[in-house]
Amino acid sequence: MSFQKLDALGRKLEALEHALAILGADEATHMAVGGGEKRAEAMANLAGMYHAQSTAPEIRDWLEAAKAEGLSEDQRLALGEFERVYVNATCLPTEFVERRTAATMRSEQLWRELRPTGDWDAFLPALEGVVALVREEAQLRADALGLAPYDALMEQYDPGNRTAELDKVFADLKAFLTDFVPQALGVQEKRLADRPLKPLTGPYPIEKQRELGLAAMRAAGFDFTHGSLAVSHHPFCGGVPTDVRMTTRYRTDEFLSSLMGVLHETGHALYEQGLPKDWSHWPLGKARGMGIHESQSLFVEMQVARSPEFWQFALPLVHLHLGEDAIPGWEVEDVLAKVNFVERGYIRVDADEVTYPLHVILRYELEQDLVSGKLEVSQIPEAWDAKMTQYLGISTINDPKDGPMQDVHWPAGIFGYFPSYTLGAMIAAQQWAALEKDIPDARGQIAKGDFAAVNDWRAQNIWLQASRWSTPDLIRRATGEPLNAGYFKAHLKRRYG
Amino acid sequence: MSFQKLDALGRKLEALEHALAILGADEATHMAVGGGEKRAEAMANLAGMYHAQSTAPEIRDWLEAAKAEGLSEDQRLALGEFERVYVNATCLPTEFVERRTAATMRSEQLWRELRPTGDWDAFLPALEGVVALVREEAQLRADALGLAPYDALMEQYDPGNRTAELDKVFADLKAFLTDFVPQALGVQEKRLADRPLKPLTGPYPIEKQRELGLAAMRAAGFDFTHGSLAVSHHPFCGGVPTDVRMTTRYRTDEFLSSLMGVLHETGHALYEQGLPKDWSHWPLGKARGMGIHESQSLFVEMQVARSPEFWQFALPLVHLHLGEDAIPGWEVEDVLAKVNFVERGYIRVDADEVTYPLHVILRYELEQDLVSGKLEVSQIPEAWDAKMTQYLGISTINDPKDGPMQDVHWPAGIFGYFPSYTLGAMIAAQQWAALEKDIPDARGQIAKGDFAAVNDWRAQNIWLQASRWSTPDLIRRATGEPLNAGYFKAHLKRRYG
Ligand SMILES: [Zn+2]
Ligand SMILES: [Zn+2]
Repeated sequence: MSFQKLDALGRKLEALEHALAILGADEATHMAVGGGEKRAEAMANLAGMYHAQSTAPEIRDWLEAAKAEGLSEDQRLALGEFERVYVNATCLPTEFVERRTAATMRSEQLWRELRPTGDWDAFLPALEGVVALVREEAQLRADALGLAPYDALMEQYDPGNRTAELDKVFADLKAFLTDFVPQALGVQEKRLADRPLKPLTGPYPIEKQRELGLAAMRAAGFDFTHGSLAVSHHPFCGGVPTDVRMTTRYRTDEFLSSLMGVLHETGHALYEQGLPKDWSHWPLGKARGMGIHESQSLFVEMQVARSPEFWQFALPLVHLHLGEDAIPGWEVEDVLAKVNFVERGYIRVDADEVTYPLHVILRYELEQDLVSGKLEVSQIPEAWDAKMTQYLGISTINDPKDGPMQDVHWPAGIFGYFPSYTLGAMIAAQQWAALEKDIPDARGQIAKGDFAAVNDWRAQNIWLQASRWSTPDLIRRATGEPLNAGYFKAHLKRRYG
Repeated sequence: MSFQKLDALGRKLEALEHALAILGADEATHMAVGGGEKRAEAMANLAGMYHAQSTAPEIRDWLEAAKAEGLSEDQRLALGEFERVYVNATCLPTEFVERRTAATMRSEQLWRELRPTGDWDAFLPALEGVVALVREEAQLRADALGLAPYDALMEQYDPGNRTAELDKVFADLKAFLTDFVPQALGVQEKRLADRPLKPLTGPYPIEKQRELGLAAMRAAGFDFTHGSLAVSHHPFCGGVPTDVRMTTRYRTDEFLSSLMGVLHETGHALYEQGLPKDWSHWPLGKARGMGIHESQSLFVEMQVARSPEFWQFALPLVHLHLGEDAIPGWEVEDVLAKVNFVERGYIRVDADEVTYPLHVILRYELEQDLVSGKLEVSQIPEAWDAKMTQYLGISTINDPKDGPMQDVHWPAGIFGYFPSYTLGAMIAAQQWAALEKDIPDARGQIAKGDFAAVNDWRAQNIWLQASRWSTPDLIRRATGEPLNAGYFKAHLKRRYG
């Protein structure tokens, strides 16, 4: 049976994925410093085997033959995902992939060299080369998938995402935020006048912070029989669903950034741990995509862990692990003022949840114009500055380092990915609203540190659905309606208005 | 060029080895408890890919074609090792390998169940099945390699090892030890009457023991830019040469077992770290075999770390890391009396260096008779007991658990491996003697914790030789003469006589 061949292939690919995931997590956490070169060589070779095995020509025959086989409903859906993944993986000619890999590797390397000084002019030719290749790639993918070029790029990260819908939702959100950011800043200013930010009185020993993080993970539902927490320079959630490797990093002068980071990654981890076990070797059994994944982390980090209810539960936990004098005299309001501090800034990754979407929408708009050819790479600094000034009231024209040179995505040739971040934030808010309809006491449960019902709702509606539906269909099935910026707007108004 | 194809194959196999080695080490150290099933599945699949790629039929053509190519001396030697490995890997029919794998897996599992109660009768049929397969395997290997059956089994672990030589060396050693063990026990008794064993006054905190272990590793030459020390239930030295994963385990009531274990594994680690870098993807660039590997660990553990000179250096190190009161009043002699304590015992893995070879020779003799058919499995308990009584003066007839059921090797179908342990002990002694001829002050340097010249000698004569020579040739080249039990005997007389 051809489906059996796909099933067997899935097991081999899962083994290679397993190796790559654990080797990747190990590299960032436990590898000896001199082990990097051989590790990179080993991983490149394993990735090559993965590519060769997952794009073998005979797979197309198996896919066609399997369609005629008597398949169960799960197998039929699985076959669809096998095919989707195969088409996405094989729609670029090898010759093109090699050209693109070489160009983006050089460009990313150059970016790492030039970013510290923000030397845009020196970087320009490399980025022009990358964008030319991205245009070519978008067209190749568009032809293979029957999609518009930018949609074909997004299709890699969130299947079913289309600019036709996203443009409207983002326009709605942008219009709201350009007014709302100054309003939220004004509200914050008045609040802080009444109740100034309290200073943190560290040092907070790393071992105690670790215990606090573990306690928060445990409360949020992290399964320590299938995962662990380590330390790495760039925090991540990696590994495999049966052994999720989460990391954080610590500074001793404060503890909130590590704790919030741990809760964010816990959101990613819960999704992986909650995926259906039986199909872990089928594409159908894997997490849906980047936007949904980010919605799971932002659900925990933003919807839950920056709420007053969560801090009713978490403040005593801080005292338990860091000591009664860790944050003397702090009340829930003091923590919230700190973790929900709003600020206009240049850097996306440092942005709060109110201003963050404007950073993303700016990139989304520029990417579309770059891919369509409406915008040339040489025009990016002016276009970037104009939008930053319009959306956030700050200028980057003399500071490319903190402007268009701040992110690795474009130097690495990754276009169509940025929207997933804000898609995630919106889905998280929409998800919370849907969940609260089914569990009216959800906030009360969180205040007691009880995540059971909340997690069960998410398991049924999101995690166990894995890749059964496209991203828009999954949103609709889980929340009862299509993506709607209204929930995220309502969330921001409630918290910052 | 066909040699280039072998070279490229070597890189792919090295990547799979790298993954298997790191996944294996990770499993014992950092894996979440619930990750085992998927890890085993992934590793089995990767091992399957390794097997398929390393035994592909076209390799035989490459090997033949490469012989006619203009190769450098290194390439010529590399080709020889590629071929040796290929022949050893392909000399068993797939059908046989599958039968054997199934049988040994069942037998090993049964052994794990039955060993605690020592139920020999229940285990007998499974072991009979395994031994029948081992006889078949020995004959298949013998036919393919043109060797005697038991030699063909040993060939997997130490290429070039032949019973024709080992029989003589082991007979010599056995004759010596049956007299020497009682003599050493008598000497020890007198010594202890004059100077009783001092008790250890723990607890010794794990964190401090770890620092002591790291300091000892560093002094012995372990390169922490290419390796690390972690904790696991069964200590091992794994990983890859560029990232050696060593482990130990701690008990808090004493510190010497962990420290001696660390030094043993450091010996293995130095060999791996000292292998030539450029050919790490060729069989030629890998460690020679099990006997040589064990000689490198026993060199550090037995020749060096149980000597009075080492403890001149190490005793202050113990005080530095465990505190001045860790072993109050202890002198070098007190440590040596402890770490070099001789005792007749049932269990090979618990044996001291004087009695250990007798455990090995017993197994070596029984294995030869089992493979040749002179001995049947049902006769093992009597044969085992007779030899234990003769060699060590203790009976196991009523205690199969601590007799023929004590080791995993036979249940797992591993025959021809045991001799490597004692081969290693003899090579270590012979190596020290050769080294001391070139570096007359070697003991003085060890007393100062200076391993530089000693390690340089070992790097040149052993580590950088990798798999250029057969085991007997490597011994001859490194020490100037063939394997000679005299050095090990002299070592024992010096230390215990
Ligand atoms: Zn995230
Ligand atoms: Zn060893």
